[in-house]
Amino acid sequence: MSFENRVRSSFGQQGLMITLGASLESVSSGSVEIVLVPRAEVSQQHGFVHAGAVCAIADSAAGYAALTLMPAEAGVLTAELKINLMAPAIGDRIVARGRVVKAGRTLTVAQTDVFAETGGQSKLIALLTATLVTVAGRENVRD
Amino acid sequence: MSFENRVRSSFGQQGLMITLGASLESVSSGSVEIVLVPRAEVSQQHGFVHAGAVCAIADSAAGYAALTLMPAEAGVLTAELKINLMAPAIGDRIVARGRVVKAGRTLTVAQTDVFAETGGQSKLIALLTATLVTVAGRENVRD
Amino acid sequence: MSFENRVRSSFGQQGLMITLGASLESVSSGSVEIVLVPRAEVSQQHGFVHAGAVCAIADSAAGYAALTLMPAEAGVLTAELKINLMAPAIGDRIVARGRVVKAGRTLTVAQTDVFAETGGQSKLIALLTATLVTVAGRENVRD
Amino acid sequence: MSFENRVRSSFGQQGLMITLGASLESVSSGSVEIVLVPRAEVSQQHGFVHAGAVCAIADSAAGYAALTLMPAEAGVLTAELKINLMAPAIGDRIVARGRVVKAGRTLTVAQTDVFAETGGQSKLIALLTATLVTVAGRENVRD
Repeated sequence: MSFENRVRSSFGQQGLMITLGASLESVSSGSVEIVLVPRAEVSQQHGFVHAGAVCAIADSAAGYAALTLMPAEAGVLTAELKINLMAPAIGDRIVARGRVVKAGRTLTVAQTDVFAETGGQSKLIALLTATLVTVAGRENVRD
Repeated sequence: MSFENRVRSSFGQQGLMITLGASLESVSSGSVEIVLVPRAEVSQQHGFVHAGAVCAIADSAAGYAALTLMPAEAGVLTAELKINLMAPAIGDRIVARGRVVKAGRTLTVAQTDVFAETGGQSKLIALLTATLVTVAGRENVRD
Repeated sequence: MSFENRVRSSFGQQGLMITLGASLESVSSGSVEIVLVPRAEVSQQHGFVHAGAVCAIADSAAGYAALTLMPAEAGVLTAELKINLMAPAIGDRIVARGRVVKAGRTLTVAQTDVFAETGGQSKLIALLTATLVTVAGRENVRD
Repeated sequence: MSFENRVRSSFGQQGLMITLGASLESVSSGSVEIVLVPRAEVSQQHGFVHAGAVCAIADSAAGYAALTLMPAEAGVLTAELKINLMAPAIGDRIVARGRVVKAGRTLTVAQTDVFAETGGQSKLIALLTATLVTVAGRENVRD
């Protein structure tokens, strides 16, 4: 299975992405893009997209960017993540672009830039760094 | 309005919490508890609750814990958060307990312990630290 | 070798701790305390202890707390750390109290509370969370 | 005073930088470079540069990058920082390149890439993200 099919197949099993209405925009070696369209169902109390929803697509983008470089049969888990929310998540689309910074045997570091697109304009609104774990030999954690 | 009503009213406007099926369990001065029942709609690909959903309830718990100590008319926003995911989020209930560590005039630091409860047993599965901003004088950011 | 001797022996080889003037106050199973006395040589530009120096003792306290629970022959490395600096690091002594939150086979999560002590009063000034790696089978990384 | 002189003057008052033997390599609008030469006095127990020392120069680089964009009379403080240590800090020189990601009125987000240079080769070994605070009107916090 190509890494793109592998990521698309795993993404399709993330119930949360479907619930949020997020879509997998692009997959290439070491980078993945996920898009979320703002709507009331993913908002916080002021009408912005909730930090948790921004975090969710940014984490999935980082994790799947890492997965593109992992050996077959392995699975990916997030050990930790940190996100800075620099501007309100509002606009036509929220776009999370994850890329691998350092791929190791056990630990991979990835970053996701999150942009808000409004009328053709793009603005960096959040920045996530995550540590992903390559899980091997566990039946129930495989991607 | 009491701080409890203030938090309950704001929580009720978080579309994402309703979408996730999260509920506000308890509110006291400087601490807030939010509960999420695992189901396919909030899962990642291995059937665990998605890191983004854990992050969402942990962030809301931290943010509302901070809000209980903020002046009337202010609003709360998350500047940044960091979460360590220490064990799979599975079980009967996922419980996020946020508490204020340091309340400042502009910045508040709060932590959320996230537990997985299964058959009466409780296990610490995640640990979040967040920096919250007290927003004053902005019409559209008020809680 | 007892875990206390193991930590004391490793700490004695941390050139930076000697340079900073930090001392290993106490070692018990899963927790370690390190003390730094503020002075010009460890300051930032306003006369407070530099965030980097606070970070250094907080990281060592977290790492050695983790080491107390690691198998013989293993070594400890920090994969990542995050620290919130909540008040200026000034006073008679800066005390970093590290404790293990979750010890895993490969990854350990530890937290360090950092206090400033002034005339018998103690104030929480910083909060660190770190992910430590248990390194096995590497000659040059052994503690 | 030009922003370069402002940064150089403040850096000269950071006792810790002198103690570590760190030097201010370059200052431009929104970015600052600090260099540290590895030696026993800044090491951890395996002979690598201590995470705390890497953190110290990375934090100063981020903070001073932020300061170049702050109004005169203001001072800069670090609210929080997070660093991923991806490879051992060894080599001829450790170079921390800080740059502003988002400058706000109160909060600035900056990132520092840390490289290890060995025989003309450069390797990314650490990645720091920090939230800096613009402090106004406090006599003792001015840069």
